[in-house]
Amino acid sequence: MTNRILTKDQKFLALSVELAIENVKSGGGPFGALIVKNGELISTAANQVTQLHDPTAHAEVLAIREAAKNLGDHKLEGCTIYSSTEPCPMCLGAIYWAGIDKLVFASNKADAEKAGFIDAHIYREFDLKLEERSIITKHLSIPHAGEEFNAWLDSEDKEVY
Amino acid sequence: MTNRILTKDQKFLALSVELAIENVKSGGGPFGALIVKNGELISTAANQVTQLHDPTAHAEVLAIREAAKNLGDHKLEGCTIYSSTEPCPMCLGAIYWAGIDKLVFASNKADAEKAGFIDAHIYREFDLKLEERSIITKHLSIPHAGEEFNAWLDSEDKEVY
Repeated sequence: MTNRILTKDQKFLALSVELAIENVKSGGGPFGALIVKNGELISTAANQVTQLHDPTAHAEVLAIREAAKNLGDHKLEGCTIYSSTEPCPMCLGAIYWAGIDKLVFASNKADAEKAGFIDAHIYREFDLKLEERSIITKHLSIPHAGEEFNAWLDSEDKEVY
Repeated sequence: MTNRILTKDQKFLALSVELAIENVKSGGGPFGALIVKNGELISTAANQVTQLHDPTAHAEVLAIREAAKNLGDHKLEGCTIYSSTEPCPMCLGAIYWAGIDKLVFASNKADAEKAGFIDAHIYREFDLKLEERSIITKHLSIPHAGEEFNAWLDSEDKEVY
């Protein structure tokens, strides 16, 4: 397979894997991601959870935050994200919120699980009822719940996202 | 209901709703969250997506990032997160990665959908096969895929997370 010509998608994807490998060498987690718009690279990132003490600092989240900063827009329309591994639920959610058009990945969540990561576990938790999940989860009723949505719907100068 | 005595959970949850209402008044999205450890508030946040041009700046993600920074640890064991609305997939994923013990929320994803937010849509996308999703999603094979996991497993000084 190394001898055949790679497509553009495969070349960018290979770069995300290189970022992941380099990141392990510098003490970080084995994940890389990058974002491309109109054929141009607009952000690259590798997992920085332990270095930054930030559980949200996955490669995809960091690449999205950087791309949005570079474009000055919270929407990344027309963008493709390349990720060395299938995004975890947090990162996949971020990809949807960013309005990214296309996602390409190499390894999958089963590969990540074999390496000791909980991505697949989290996906399985999503399929459980609230009361069956490993995190105690309570849907409580309180006074004034939902008033924030009324305020939002009533607001005339809101910026919808 | 407003006349009865609130539990501790309900009081913290009510504060997350107040944060959401205040945030709408200052031009932000209708979502608030906070994190409590041993009865003490360690972070509060409201949605800042449009203000920061950051699609990942949901209340829960910001509260988690702030709490982790304050504790100097990417794990938030012993913590409870209170969220004005049921966390979206991105935020729920972040809660799992942070190792938070307990989640309490007031409104749910159906309420958010009525107010125009895509949380429920993203949850539905998670239940679809890759090829059925609204974001073009490709699992591609490339040379060297997975080598980052071998490097990780071989690394002797890695910090597991």
